Amino acid sequence: MSRWIQNGDNVDITKERKNATFNTERMSAWIHGGDEVLKRRREILDYVKSNPDFKDPIPVEFLSREERVSNGTRKIVKMTDNTDQIDGADFFGEGMYFQSLVMGRDLHPLSLHYIMFLPTLQGQTDDEQLDEWLPKAIARSIVGTYAQTELGHGTNLSKLETTATYDPSTQEFVLHSPTITAAKWWPGGLGKSSNHAIVVAQLYTKGQCKGPHPFIVQLRDLETHKPMKGVRLGDIGPKLGINGSDNGFLLFDKYRIPRKAMLMRYSKVQPDGTYIAPAHSKLGYGTMVFVRSIMIKDQATQLGAAATIATRYSAVRRQGEPVVGNGEIQILDYQTQQYRVFPQLARAFAFLFAAYEIRDLYLRLTEELTHGNTELLPEIHALSSGLKSVVSWDTAQGIEQCRLSCGGHGYSQASAFPEIYGYAVGGCTYEGENLVMLLQVARYLVKAAEETRKGTSNLAEICGYISKTGRRTSSLTSIANYTTDQIIEDLEHVARKQVFHAYDKLKKAQQHVKPEDAWNQSSVELAKASRWHVRLYLVKTFLKKVDKAPEDLKKVMIHVARLYAFDIISSSSGNFLEEGYMRPDQITEIKEGVYECLAKIRPVAVSLVDSWDYDDLELKSVLGKRDGNVYEALLQWAQNSQLNKSDVIPTFEKYLGPMMKDARSKL
Amino acid sequence: MSRWIQNGDNVDITKERKNATFNTERMSAWIHGGDEVLKRRREILDYVKSNPDFKDPIPVEFLSREERVSNGTRKIVKMTDNTDQIDGADFFGEGMYFQSLVMGRDLHPLSLHYIMFLPTLQGQTDDEQLDEWLPKAIARSIVGTYAQTELGHGTNLSKLETTATYDPSTQEFVLHSPTITAAKWWPGGLGKSSNHAIVVAQLYTKGQCKGPHPFIVQLRDLETHKPMKGVRLGDIGPKLGINGSDNGFLLFDKYRIPRKAMLMRYSKVQPDGTYIAPAHSKLGYGTMVFVRSIMIKDQATQLGAAATIATRYSAVRRQGEPVVGNGEIQILDYQTQQYRVFPQLARAFAFLFAAYEIRDLYLRLTEELTHGNTELLPEIHALSSGLKSVVSWDTAQGIEQCRLSCGGHGYSQASAFPEIYGYAVGGCTYEGENLVMLLQVARYLVKAAEETRKGTSNLAEICGYISKTGRRTSSLTSIANYTTDQIIEDLEHVARKQVFHAYDKLKKAQQHVKPEDAWNQSSVELAKASRWHVRLYLVKTFLKKVDKAPEDLKKVMIHVARLYAFDIISSSSGNFLEEGYMRPDQITEIKEGVYECLAKIRPVAVSLVDSWDYDDLELKSVLGKRDGNVYEALLQWAQNSQLNKSDVIPTFEKYLGPMMKDARSKL
Ligand SMILES: Cc1cc2nc3c(=O)[nH]c(=O)nc-3n(C[C@H](O)[C@H](O)[C@H](O)COP(=O)(O)OP(=O)(O)OC[C@H]3O[C@@H](n4cnc5c(N)ncnc54)[C@H](O)[C@@H]3O)c2cc1C
Ligand SMILES: Cc1cc2nc3c(=O)[nH]c(=O)nc-3n(C[C@H](O)[C@H](O)[C@H](O)COP(=O)(O)OP(=O)(O)OC[C@H]3O[C@@H](n4cnc5c(N)ncnc54)[C@H](O)[C@@H]3O)c2cc1C
Repeated sequence: MSRWIQNGDNVDITKERKNATFNTERMSAWIHGGDEVLKRRREILDYVKSNPDFKDPIPVEFLSREERVSNGTRKIVKMTDNTDQIDGADFFGEGMYFQSLVMGRDLHPLSLHYIMFLPTLQGQTDDEQLDEWLPKAIARSIVGTYAQTELGHGTNLSKLETTATYDPSTQEFVLHSPTITAAKWWPGGLGKSSNHAIVVAQLYTKGQCKGPHPFIVQLRDLETHKPMKGVRLGDIGPKLGINGSDNGFLLFDKYRIPRKAMLMRYSKVQPDGTYIAPAHSKLGYGTMVFVRSIMIKDQATQLGAAATIATRYSAVRRQGEPVVGNGEIQILDYQTQQYRVFPQLARAFAFLFAAYEIRDLYLRLTEELTHGNTELLPEIHALSSGLKSVVSWDTAQGIEQCRLSCGGHGYSQASAFPEIYGYAVGGCTYEGENLVMLLQVARYLVKAAEETRKGTSNLAEICGYISKTGRRTSSLTSIANYTTDQIIEDLEHVARKQVFHAYDKLKKAQQHVKPEDAWNQSSVELAKASRWHVRLYLVKTFLKKVDKAPEDLKKVMIHVARLYAFDIISSSSGNFLEEGYMRPDQITEIKEGVYECLAKIRPVAVSLVDSWDYDDLELKSVLGKRDGNVYEALLQWAQNSQLNKSDVIPTFEKYLGPMMKDARSKL
Repeated sequence: MSRWIQNGDNVDITKERKNATFNTERMSAWIHGGDEVLKRRREILDYVKSNPDFKDPIPVEFLSREERVSNGTRKIVKMTDNTDQIDGADFFGEGMYFQSLVMGRDLHPLSLHYIMFLPTLQGQTDDEQLDEWLPKAIARSIVGTYAQTELGHGTNLSKLETTATYDPSTQEFVLHSPTITAAKWWPGGLGKSSNHAIVVAQLYTKGQCKGPHPFIVQLRDLETHKPMKGVRLGDIGPKLGINGSDNGFLLFDKYRIPRKAMLMRYSKVQPDGTYIAPAHSKLGYGTMVFVRSIMIKDQATQLGAAATIATRYSAVRRQGEPVVGNGEIQILDYQTQQYRVFPQLARAFAFLFAAYEIRDLYLRLTEELTHGNTELLPEIHALSSGLKSVVSWDTAQGIEQCRLSCGGHGYSQASAFPEIYGYAVGGCTYEGENLVMLLQVARYLVKAAEETRKGTSNLAEICGYISKTGRRTSSLTSIANYTTDQIIEDLEHVARKQVFHAYDKLKKAQQHVKPEDAWNQSSVELAKASRWHVRLYLVKTFLKKVDKAPEDLKKVMIHVARLYAFDIISSSSGNFLEEGYMRPDQITEIKEGVYECLAKIRPVAVSLVDSWDYDDLELKSVLGKRDGNVYEALLQWAQNSQLNKSDVIPTFEKYLGPMMKDARSKL
């Protein structure tokens, strides 16, 4: 018996585990960053399991929205009572894991308090404000959120409509929502839970608009929790996911707040209304990079969970008898099933390792910034925006592939897939709408292309490939001898080509139409360039990480990393065939490489997903249970259905009974 | 003022409509099959609108599962009270429209009664049984469902575990579920609503198993609605969608039913237990083709709805100021937005027209079958299976693209996207799991390839391309002169190539490994061949339909049809570049063709989606409202939230209040 193999487990899944060609614990440690990290994960898990406060009385999918919000609030208060159990400085590692175990994927009314309210206070207040607000926020004597998006504006912040007009006579700002579209809309925890918010509003002083600025605003009475006079707010209703969060709306009716409610670290309004502009403008970028590293890790974790559920279920599910009389086979043996699931597993790894890298880049960046060195900033900022976009989309797609691979049972909420999808896919939209992000990255790439053409480029490591002179044809001879360097070279070629293709398209269009139209007419190609830029980075990071792995793990992981790369190449073969960079037989070779990787991964698939170290508590999936005893568990899970509270539900008395009786009387 | 333009509408959307270059009513009639059909649609719509019984008191997304099932039951009983309002023989047309208006997308407890229970009675009973059961089912004096899938088996029906053992001493069958995996699982309306079911069970007589057979079984008492003794059943819990349906589970404990409960049109068991095998085996295929035509139309309707919502919202939403100071532009003007939305609109058309064709093929098939001619059967059956698979997957993907194109608001259930997605994506799994379907189609294609190689092929119209000798290079010179025939030729080339590529791979593998392994090792390539087979059909059908359209409509629709084709080619350029069939500059030409089509569609986009003739009642989307006044409507919609019933919800008293108070006392 071991962590993963227990008495009473499904026999198929046990057999899979016994066939592992590597040590799962060693793999887990490598994946998560070392033995010490793995040890801490287990301590946190044990703590959560031992604490009855963290239990869900019944699975959240059976709860109404009120019950979801209530259950989430109960748990998050308990969780934040117990943050001494984790290293508070390590949100990327211990914090996220703790939260994931306790809170699951339905979110909760304090998420914005921690993700945005606190960091904004830390980053945007002057010293006096910091002293006033930070201790309250940390102690949870107030609950805050971050209210930026409005009904009418999310992407284009410069057009936010909420106004904050300075009145020097009382030294107050007057917050007002002049239109319906000015209503704040979406902020997590705004509807019912928060009594404070950072509100982003157009600052008016001395008759002039100074653009959007952040204010700290009290929304509800501390004692009664009733909305303050002049404040109208509520919940925005059910969503595709995260229904444990009371995302809210907020309208102001000439609501007065003191001058010192404006966060004054950078810009200031003096008592007489004089506006003082900020000295630096891009200082917030570092934090954005950090938040993205968290998001990317979170997405990887969701996709990894989906791949774990699908892989385990595919080992347990027997369906179809290729040779009649020989018995049904595990669906994991179908090549089509492997082709559905394993690339998602490969992606999850690629994204996780990229998240680590971005976190490290963030730390380097912070270090450089303290020395006044901002050189790395644009490149890393662009990369992290692009990664956010590519990773969140591929994750969403991957989750659905995993779900579909489980047939009918994947459609049940018992599988957890609907919740995983609803939660993860939100990441395509928040923290910067994906396409808008890709176009931002493209602005950076266009600059890089321009400098390269001019010969003035001085590109750092991530973008260096743009100014490289590559080969004219791929050097791939056979898949067996296809090295990491060759793979990267081939991807660099395609990424570079697409960057210049989009750049040239833009330049050509600029000769005929207005600059904004030229940009627009090239924008699909520009977005494609951004995607290749990011994919190249992901492949490079993954392959290099695996190349450096210990031999016993590398011999397994190499197939996963290559699957990731080969899948990208073979599913975009057009880009590689163009201008004869690759020959069709080389593409065929790579396709065969995909099938080879699938076959190599097949025998170790269950142990590979075990190595991600998900506890059942974290997966929250009946199909993905460690023990593989899914059918009993499905039957048991279904008993929770609200409809099963009684044998005969009221619709019989009210509608079906009379209908049938009436018909019988007439027959 | 017109059907689509009204006083008080959003000005942007009105402007779009005024710019229409074609007559929307004419287009609607063309899309839906003629003036008479359109007239009937409007009559049905008016009837539904005028009948207060069909109103939802509040939008379903705010209801609990009990409330959803209850509301759905209420409406479906009223709806089926009023079937005289429609042409009952025309389910494909009037029936589906009526149901869509009244019931929406949350399904209801009688769906299986009509889709499967009734048709199975019609198709599988002997005359005596038909007389006994059909009138009851039609009169709704009983409610039935179709219980085939079990916890352990959906795809592989031959391994169903429920047994029906004949006992000649009492002339009864004993229904039994020997294991947990034998539990029936998924049937719609089984949990709480049905009192009868067609149960598919392994027939045992005289000690021999005769395979799965259908039985009609009473599950609940007609008066009390309590489960019969020996019958255990209930709801299977919440799902990704269709939560108004009580999909259920069912276990038998030696439950006895009379001999005549076995549906005896084809197979029979005589009183002494003698089994009589059926004469024909594939007679059910015709009905399957019909059901698929319904499904494909339904998918097209959902995707069309998604495209309508996204297009209208994109006309109303202004975000971003390409030239600062010039004001924000409609997001519909962004090429990236067009690229997200318009291909989905194009697909919706392609699928709708394919649905019509399949319905027509079905009618031809039925005609031929009455003359004993089964020649068409395999080809049409394969095509319809493949279409079901490709259409449902592209629909699901397309809906999500539309949703994402609406930014944050797409994530809210107010948009209706979450419901549309949950409803439509189920189609990837039921009525034959998509990949299993593609592999079925592949078996047909392999046979066709084999016969072609042998020179014995006698392929009919749909598969004729497989045995054609095509060109070695594409004849495309410029996109302006790229004709329908050339486009089809190019797609035929790629489809044929993939069919033979997969076939050759299979044959080669058969020389080295066992047949089942050869099949498995080629299965991903085989599934790809099936997809190309279907895509070719879709492109062909769409282009030909448009070529025959009246000139005023054709000049608009041609861009939509070409977008559909060009998008397929350019996003799979590798297949076209291989072996120099196309040159890179030809691919570039096609890509530019995509952008040209987007630009051509842009000015007519709103009128094009109007032509689909969705009423707000059918869309059920705040973002997709005809009048374009989305922001007011969002705010109003949100007021229904369960959380907005009171200003202060109980979580404050219970959790947040004490937490903050405690913290305040310590600060
Ligand atoms: C789950 C969730 C939680 C959220 N939480 C919060 C929160 O706590 N606080 C908060 O303030 N906000 C929150 N938001 C709002 C979120 O930040 C915005 O939805 C997001 O920034 C996207 O903006 P938007 O909704 O205005 O989309 P839009 O900008 O309206 O996007 C719609 C479409 O227009 C396109 N588009 C827009 N501009 C351009 C352009 N310049 N070029 C090309 N195409 C363009 C987009 O690509 C997209 O396809 C949340 C949103 C979600 C979904
Ligand atoms: C919304 C919904 C409603 C439904 N309603 C009903 C109903 O009313 N009545 C009813 O009887 N049933 C119903 N079903 C069940 C449905 O018919 C089955 O789920 C469906 O047939 C798929 O079978 P499965 O679930 O066993 O999937 P599985 O066959 O277990 O599929 C799982 C995976 O295995 C793969 N696989 C399986 N066999 C093969 C093979 N031979 N070769 C390659 N790969 C294979 C599949 O591709 C898939 O990836 C419903 C299902 C859903 C989701």
